[in-house]
Amino acid sequence: MNKKTYDVAIIGCGPAGLSAAVNASIRRKSIVLLGGELCTPKLQKSPLVSNYLGFPEIDGPSLRDKFLRHARSMDVPVLQEKVDSVTRIEGDIFSLQTRQSEYHTRTVIMATGVTVSELVKGEREFIGKGVSYCATCDGPLFAGQQVAVLAYTKEGIEDANYLAGICRKVYFISGGGLAPQGLKDVVEVIENQKVGAITGKEFVSEVIIGDRTLAVNGVFIYRETYLPDQLISGLTITDNHINVDRSFQTNVKGVFAAGDCTGKPYQLAKAVGEGQVAALSAVQYLDQ
Amino acid sequence: MNKKTYDVAIIGCGPAGLSAAVNASIRRKSIVLLGGELCTPKLQKSPLVSNYLGFPEIDGPSLRDKFLRHARSMDVPVLQEKVDSVTRIEGDIFSLQTRQSEYHTRTVIMATGVTVSELVKGEREFIGKGVSYCATCDGPLFAGQQVAVLAYTKEGIEDANYLAGICRKVYFISGGGLAPQGLKDVVEVIENQKVGAITGKEFVSEVIIGDRTLAVNGVFIYRETYLPDQLISGLTITDNHINVDRSFQTNVKGVFAAGDCTGKPYQLAKAVGEGQVAALSAVQYLDQ
Repeated sequence: MNKKTYDVAIIGCGPAGLSAAVNASIRRKSIVLLGGELCTPKLQKSPLVSNYLGFPEIDGPSLRDKFLRHARSMDVPVLQEKVDSVTRIEGDIFSLQTRQSEYHTRTVIMATGVTVSELVKGEREFIGKGVSYCATCDGPLFAGQQVAVLAYTKEGIEDANYLAGICRKVYFISGGGLAPQGLKDVVEVIENQKVGAITGKEFVSEVIIGDRTLAVNGVFIYRETYLPDQLISGLTITDNHINVDRSFQTNVKGVFAAGDCTGKPYQLAKAVGEGQVAALSAVQYLDQ
Repeated sequence: MNKKTYDVAIIGCGPAGLSAAVNASIRRKSIVLLGGELCTPKLQKSPLVSNYLGFPEIDGPSLRDKFLRHARSMDVPVLQEKVDSVTRIEGDIFSLQTRQSEYHTRTVIMATGVTVSELVKGEREFIGKGVSYCATCDGPLFAGQQVAVLAYTKEGIEDANYLAGICRKVYFISGGGLAPQGLKDVVEVIENQKVGAITGKEFVSEVIIGDRTLAVNGVFIYRETYLPDQLISGLTITDNHINVDRSFQTNVKGVFAAGDCTGKPYQLAKAVGEGQVAALSAVQYLDQ
């Protein structure tokens, strides 16, 4: 538990998140930047960037290095912690839950990048009604019940083991070629099967996987990318992108968004510019 | 007269205009970039820029140099020609009139920067009804009449001399400390006086300057910056900024805008990002 209340918490350490951090830092706000295992993997994989003004021709890893060095030169802490949930606590303070810790902040800038292109059928419909992205947060609700873990990342393995300790039955569905290694014996592994749908009436009751139908009360999903509205409830989304106005404010007071998560084109300069404006809007909101 | 029809004409060679040029060029569109005497004077004057991601600390002139070199490395011609007017000619083609030439284009990106903070009282009201920004364009309408030239730039001196050849009387009001040198003897110079207002009924009939009231039919105004709607008629403006949607399209089909002219914050990264998006939107419009 981290008792400090930050001015700005930034979720995502791609170009939008780093630009937001640099700009909020110049305005002397306290910042915590929470990113994935590797900041901006898309840039890391890019052999040549030629449309970010000022760098006529540069390879992605070098530009990424310059971006990170810029943020670090301003003493912005870049923490490799994935945020599991954002909730509003007393007054205008938000709490950000990560696997390792909890952070309090007055504003949030979502810079979570491109979202998943395709959801599981039924996924969005059952968010909070059996579909979850965080066993630490929601696992206890399923004590003694049957659950499935659909994992594209290693966090899914950890959480399946955790759930195995409290649930009657845990199915582990490995997605995207993830090796299901290190799982407890009681976890039933299902590999190389297409996830058909999550179904139910008011709450989840089944998941269809390959030609099997598993009776479950909960489905925990682990992906590299965020579904933009999985973190903050009530966020207005259109076509999987977070709705923002020209100041990059979302419909939730104190929450801003920038970069690919706000919509196309998925481009570097757009993300950097939006990160700047979102940060300055957050500063303005704080100084009100 | 330049007979070629360009895909994209960009007005303004600041960060937004240069970013638009680089991005449209990568998409293999033919471009003409028309800028002022000095590209991005604001950047030129800036001793230190520390919030443009990738350059932790750089002085304005060096960054400006990198921006211009980037555009030139992509063979973008940066022409030092001020655009006087934009009109739609046959079909979907626009004609851009400069003092030196005329350019035809399928799309226009306005990257004209910060606008004047304060207009002369009555100025906007009488645009096209006696107020003009271009003697070459509108001078002949005032043949044999009385006009005033309000000049903050040297173009005003040139145009006052031109008007002196066709008008019955030309007053030259020098604004912002401009030295009224090189004017024909017949031009009456008024210096160090506050411009009060432009007045009239349907058309301009007087300009109030200091404690004098001059009877005139026309007022020609020359400033370093553009009034965003002086170039293209029908552009929707709010608080002196061009209205754009998230793709940086204006209300006029084929016309886009980016950078400071679209609104605050007046920031580099914002301008570069908007230039990119405007260019990609123009490309999309062209490829439809």
